[in-house]
Amino acid sequence: MTQPYAKLDKNNAAVLLVDHQAGLLSLVRDFQPDQFKNNVLALGDLARYFNLPTILTTSFEQGPNGPLVQELKDQFPDAPYIARPGQINAWDNEDFVKAVKATGRKQLIIAGVVTEVCVAFPALSALEEGFEVFVVTDASGTFNEVTRDAAWDRMSQAGAQLMSWFGVACELHRDWRNDIEGLGTLFANHIPDYRNLMASYSAVQAASQGK
Amino acid sequence: MTQPYAKLDKNNAAVLLVDHQAGLLSLVRDFQPDQFKNNVLALGDLARYFNLPTILTTSFEQGPNGPLVQELKDQFPDAPYIARPGQINAWDNEDFVKAVKATGRKQLIIAGVVTEVCVAFPALSALEEGFEVFVVTDASGTFNEVTRDAAWDRMSQAGAQLMSWFGVACELHRDWRNDIEGLGTLFANHIPDYRNLMASYSAVQAASQGK
Amino acid sequence: MTQPYAKLDKNNAAVLLVDHQAGLLSLVRDFQPDQFKNNVLALGDLARYFNLPTILTTSFEQGPNGPLVQELKDQFPDAPYIARPGQINAWDNEDFVKAVKATGRKQLIIAGVVTEVCVAFPALSALEEGFEVFVVTDASGTFNEVTRDAAWDRMSQAGAQLMSWFGVACELHRDWRNDIEGLGTLFANHIPDYRNLMASYSAVQAASQGK
Amino acid sequence: MTQPYAKLDKNNAAVLLVDHQAGLLSLVRDFQPDQFKNNVLALGDLARYFNLPTILTTSFEQGPNGPLVQELKDQFPDAPYIARPGQINAWDNEDFVKAVKATGRKQLIIAGVVTEVCVAFPALSALEEGFEVFVVTDASGTFNEVTRDAAWDRMSQAGAQLMSWFGVACELHRDWRNDIEGLGTLFANHIPDYRNLMASYSAVQAASQGK
Amino acid sequence: MTQPYAKLDKNNAAVLLVDHQAGLLSLVRDFQPDQFKNNVLALGDLARYFNLPTILTTSFEQGPNGPLVQELKDQFPDAPYIARPGQINAWDNEDFVKAVKATGRKQLIIAGVVTEVCVAFPALSALEEGFEVFVVTDASGTFNEVTRDAAWDRMSQAGAQLMSWFGVACELHRDWRNDIEGLGTLFANHIPDYRNLMASYSAVQAASQGK
Amino acid sequence: MTQPYAKLDKNNAAVLLVDHQAGLLSLVRDFQPDQFKNNVLALGDLARYFNLPTILTTSFEQGPNGPLVQELKDQFPDAPYIARPGQINAWDNEDFVKAVKATGRKQLIIAGVVTEVCVAFPALSALEEGFEVFVVTDASGTFNEVTRDAAWDRMSQAGAQLMSWFGVACELHRDWRNDIEGLGTLFANHIPDYRNLMASYSAVQAASQGK
Amino acid sequence: MTQPYAKLDKNNAAVLLVDHQAGLLSLVRDFQPDQFKNNVLALGDLARYFNLPTILTTSFEQGPNGPLVQELKDQFPDAPYIARPGQINAWDNEDFVKAVKATGRKQLIIAGVVTEVCVAFPALSALEEGFEVFVVTDASGTFNEVTRDAAWDRMSQAGAQLMSWFGVACELHRDWRNDIEGLGTLFANHIPDYRNLMASYSAVQAASQGK
Amino acid sequence: MTQPYAKLDKNNAAVLLVDHQAGLLSLVRDFQPDQFKNNVLALGDLARYFNLPTILTTSFEQGPNGPLVQELKDQFPDAPYIARPGQINAWDNEDFVKAVKATGRKQLIIAGVVTEVCVAFPALSALEEGFEVFVVTDASGTFNEVTRDAAWDRMSQAGAQLMSWFGVACELHRDWRNDIEGLGTLFANHIPDYRNLMASYSAVQAASQGK
Repeated sequence: MTQPYAKLDKNNAAVLLVDHQAGLLSLVRDFQPDQFKNNVLALGDLARYFNLPTILTTSFEQGPNGPLVQELKDQFPDAPYIARPGQINAWDNEDFVKAVKATGRKQLIIAGVVTEVCVAFPALSALEEGFEVFVVTDASGTFNEVTRDAAWDRMSQAGAQLMSWFGVACELHRDWRNDIEGLGTLFANHIPDYRNLMASYSAVQAASQGK
Repeated sequence: MTQPYAKLDKNNAAVLLVDHQAGLLSLVRDFQPDQFKNNVLALGDLARYFNLPTILTTSFEQGPNGPLVQELKDQFPDAPYIARPGQINAWDNEDFVKAVKATGRKQLIIAGVVTEVCVAFPALSALEEGFEVFVVTDASGTFNEVTRDAAWDRMSQAGAQLMSWFGVACELHRDWRNDIEGLGTLFANHIPDYRNLMASYSAVQAASQGK
Repeated sequence: MTQPYAKLDKNNAAVLLVDHQAGLLSLVRDFQPDQFKNNVLALGDLARYFNLPTILTTSFEQGPNGPLVQELKDQFPDAPYIARPGQINAWDNEDFVKAVKATGRKQLIIAGVVTEVCVAFPALSALEEGFEVFVVTDASGTFNEVTRDAAWDRMSQAGAQLMSWFGVACELHRDWRNDIEGLGTLFANHIPDYRNLMASYSAVQAASQGK
Repeated sequence: MTQPYAKLDKNNAAVLLVDHQAGLLSLVRDFQPDQFKNNVLALGDLARYFNLPTILTTSFEQGPNGPLVQELKDQFPDAPYIARPGQINAWDNEDFVKAVKATGRKQLIIAGVVTEVCVAFPALSALEEGFEVFVVTDASGTFNEVTRDAAWDRMSQAGAQLMSWFGVACELHRDWRNDIEGLGTLFANHIPDYRNLMASYSAVQAASQGK
Repeated sequence: MTQPYAKLDKNNAAVLLVDHQAGLLSLVRDFQPDQFKNNVLALGDLARYFNLPTILTTSFEQGPNGPLVQELKDQFPDAPYIARPGQINAWDNEDFVKAVKATGRKQLIIAGVVTEVCVAFPALSALEEGFEVFVVTDASGTFNEVTRDAAWDRMSQAGAQLMSWFGVACELHRDWRNDIEGLGTLFANHIPDYRNLMASYSAVQAASQGK
Repeated sequence: MTQPYAKLDKNNAAVLLVDHQAGLLSLVRDFQPDQFKNNVLALGDLARYFNLPTILTTSFEQGPNGPLVQELKDQFPDAPYIARPGQINAWDNEDFVKAVKATGRKQLIIAGVVTEVCVAFPALSALEEGFEVFVVTDASGTFNEVTRDAAWDRMSQAGAQLMSWFGVACELHRDWRNDIEGLGTLFANHIPDYRNLMASYSAVQAASQGK
Repeated sequence: MTQPYAKLDKNNAAVLLVDHQAGLLSLVRDFQPDQFKNNVLALGDLARYFNLPTILTTSFEQGPNGPLVQELKDQFPDAPYIARPGQINAWDNEDFVKAVKATGRKQLIIAGVVTEVCVAFPALSALEEGFEVFVVTDASGTFNEVTRDAAWDRMSQAGAQLMSWFGVACELHRDWRNDIEGLGTLFANHIPDYRNLMASYSAVQAASQGK
Repeated sequence: MTQPYAKLDKNNAAVLLVDHQAGLLSLVRDFQPDQFKNNVLALGDLARYFNLPTILTTSFEQGPNGPLVQELKDQFPDAPYIARPGQINAWDNEDFVKAVKATGRKQLIIAGVVTEVCVAFPALSALEEGFEVFVVTDASGTFNEVTRDAAWDRMSQAGAQLMSWFGVACELHRDWRNDIEGLGTLFANHIPDYRNLMASYSAVQAASQGK
């Protein structure tokens, strides 16, 4: 390793959510729908929890691609929202790039639908311009696993770092002592096993203390 | 087919939720956790939507099995709740059987954790007593797929009908004209693809009407 | 085997295509979309090839479920087409049952979306009324494989016969001498491997004969 | 269901372990080796825990099939041990059948290697003679999943009940109040998730009580 | 179990190999090709080993379906060989049925390509006429696993017994003392793991005896 | 990333289709046949849509490898068509390389059968000569997934970019405003889910506007 | 390869076991629980067998994450044990890094739960500081295979070497002549197939020598 | 690509077959046994076909690892055969390295059991000494797919090229005109689909020519 560990920093990271639209989601078949929805909303929640600048963008909302998923709109009512008039690569849209640069952040956390286009294209463009790119693999979906694997390889070979939303959250948080309850809630809301651990813990604790 | 189609009837059905406890859920590995949680809560929601008598039961909540999942408690605050002192087969517990019989229903919709024990044992006992049994396969979980397949075979051979929560809802509802909005909401809340269909539909409709 | 082999007979069979609608198809995830589309159209083609009476039905075409797939409309421009006003089980719709009975056929070949509802419900109802039921498993789709397996079990236990479209075609045709070219074309159009066999065969034959 | 639920009864059940030999185990590929070993030993432990009469049998131990797995020998040093001189179906060996009948039990819990031969043959023979047969599917292994599925179907159609070792243990125990610690230990030793539940429980309890 | 165990008997069984043709084999995708070839040849070898009357049949050898696999021709140079002029169900061909009946056997071991047609149709016809039918599932192939599962279900529900070639061999042989070397050779030739067991055994034995 | 993003450019790209022959296609088992056929034809359609110079090549068409798939011949009646007399690596054929160089393009989009030979060999040779290579992974097939994964790794390590046909189309198109209808038609013809989105969209729009 | 083969050296390697805690283990779903437990304990046993300095660390043992697995405590009663007060990346804990550096070793063998956090973070930090990092992939677990694959890619691209516990043991041992019995015992205890090989070997040897 | 394409050259390549021993093969579970045996023998056959210097080596043949597979002995009666007295990495054995160097070849084609040890260790050592290394992935086996993937990644990152035996054969042969019959026979013997293509071809040709 000849260069330092490019570690996510909550003061230097921004989140780009690309084309999570109601119609396009019907194309996603490398995840179960329940699981994918949960992963996307978890990423949204972590962006809010860490107060990361977040940018939404969509492609042809008025057409068959459909509107942005309502939950994301609700999570980010005030975020820059670039409805691209036609550019497939969000990075080809000036407003989008301006919005990214306006954040002043150098680390871009990207997720979208579909992986090999809406995620890979801006990821490669951003890498070319010197950004550090972190792909949230489990909040990005595509047609099937063959397509996904090819897209991952292309991005990885170009220098993108492949992450999960959970890994992103942990790398941003660094230390539980920064805030136990907030992060715990984030995990409990999106990881059923974690919620169960917490529930069992609380129950035993209460019982043992005679509550 | 020498006997009539045993069709679910909302006036003759009751729901039995067996041992969906925080600790036991960590044993479930034949479903992804996100998906399983969604299925269980969907079953709970449909029980409420159709006003089906619903009975909760748990095994050793104070021990490692952990407390009943909080969402189920919240869905059914007033339901009969039988914390079994030790019987593994809920049907061996008199209070449970009394509660079942008190509903006056002859069709039992059963789900639980783990499938080959907490579901199969009461299912077989109920069949033996002449009830019609409908197993909600996707709201019942166990250690792995081998175990699940064996449990399904045993129940099916004994006369249980294997269903999904979606199939149960549709068979109970019979006709969309009974209520479109309620059932649509149930589906939208638990089937992301369905929600997306509805969102796209509404968006196009609004746009076309110049809204 | 205590009863005779219930064998498909082209003079006694009808085809029921239930709810292959554009919106509902986005729910189908137990088949790859390319494969599923091919299977459904193959079933349509075989129904026409054997001149089987065919009945189309849909549920709420004006809503999110979307319109019937255009290719099916094109395949059966004159078929009875029952747009159900609300009944989930097509058999609960009088017009549908009338249309079925009007065919005078006693063998029903059923496919639809989703398997455990739109296929299973009319299949069970038809069995109850004494029809022989043949489910075209690969032209019927649903949410996932767990759901499919449960639906198959329920139908099989009630006496339905589980088939593939290819098996249906072969059982109806009985003897290649009835017509080689027609059936061969049907297979070549829907089974790429079969088309390749034919292409290789023709090429060698042509070359060997100095063509 | 026209007949009573054939429920395992610890006073009426015996265990038959067929051909778990070191060489034959290398043929088992429908389970991971770690998992299979654990399941077989779990079945052995439960047989001992419930004091079920247990019969061991092997085929050609001196040849390539190899010796009986040492752990089973250690678990059952005094069990009837029938080294069959050649019969493939253990039920064709008089000593074996005598040993079975000497137990006086009418419920036979069978596991072995390979499933479609060493398990299925005696299972079918025992059913023919009026025994109730319970196949422990996860302690029985074979070449691959295709072979397993076919074997399960044959046995199930003949009336065998397909179980897991965990289901067997629970059905035999009936009520935790019969003995919590013993059964808990059995589970903790063979289900890592269960052990973890117990460990977490004890830790919280100790901590909460200031231990 | 209300009827006796229908056990394969080498004096009462015949083998039917249906349409294992070079072209049709390219359609088989529910097995790896290496594995499928091995299974088919194993079945051929066992038929010869037990001197079972064996009947070959093909469909349209001169066309795209291609010639019978050469190895099967070599294994059975003198077997009845019915090149059907067009019948899809071999049982619809008089010569084939005559050949079957000429064997005087009542147990039919059937394998072929593709499972839901070339195997299922004659299997169902033979059951209808009172034969006992044993399907060799791993020497029968088809388009994919969905199609296979449906075909198995149809045959099983009609009374066919689902077997593997290894299970067939063992049930026919009954007792190793009838002939160790012959059966051992059959297994070593078609089960690499078994061959390895034998090789290791011989090596250790030789070494230990100072050879 | 120390070098610019090698982005597909429709004025600088050519398509090489290598050995999609009727016989060789029977070797492809890492895709379902329906799906693979669709992917290959989609690639052909996109090459035509973007007017990319396209080169066809085959190996031993007169022998068992069989003729080029007819649909590709039909798509490219005027394309250079190099029937190689024996070279396995198309790049070892002078006419092929001449044809490639005659296009004047520096970006090569390659697909073929089988992946580790007919695709990987010319891909590596072209990389060696300084071309940019884009492998269309989902229009390239081989014996199984192990073989595919190894081939992908070899090409990726040498600098090839792994793509899907959909990704290729999107990267070439850059902006929907260049042409909505043409690209939309391409997608609708080869992505059933996309066609369904469009159909639902049109239906709602028409209905809302009172058509 | 421009740099020498970074080979594990038992005099230069240390083992870091990160967060194998009872609660966190319920999150691990990319391995079967039986298998994962065995792999972790195998890694512990090899660390002891080779006398490698081993460091244990945990995160929030008193909370829902639960206590360190008891077996690891028992294997390493005297190892440095860093209960981190909050740092997610163990490398952010000074005591941990001190303990690592105190070993004087430059090769770090790391395993933990979950892979993309508890393993990846210290792995990347250690690489940054010039350590050679060997990840024990089969003793590290996480939520699912998608998450695992992404984590592996990130670590591999940064220079970590991906190993299995078996590969680690073999690379450390170098030559069986250093000790046959010890390593053989290690393998027999954790690889059932290996134990079976040894049992068969011993049995034949004994028999051949007339024992 | 900054360096030339390292292409296999039959005048510069040697084959190393490492530890394909009867006992060790029972550990291989990332391939079906039939398939793996076929792949290994195909590699042996191609080594002979191209007259590549081939070196055999084994580890502890007299112990549980068992003897070299007999077929390999038969294929290479005169090849250097290094029975290593204890070195796990064959490259640590002087005789082995001498034998490799005596071939004068700079390209090493390596396969063995198990992948992460018997293949990876000599592959990494050979790379370190400047050899070009080609791993035959489908003739190398190990415990499971997780272990395989990790081993592949380690070797690939170090510069090894991952191949299949078919790819190796094609890259060595370069041009069918060098010999059609020999290579065709090699393929027909080890690729059932290829054999079928040839059989169909010959049959049609013969028929068309009135033979």
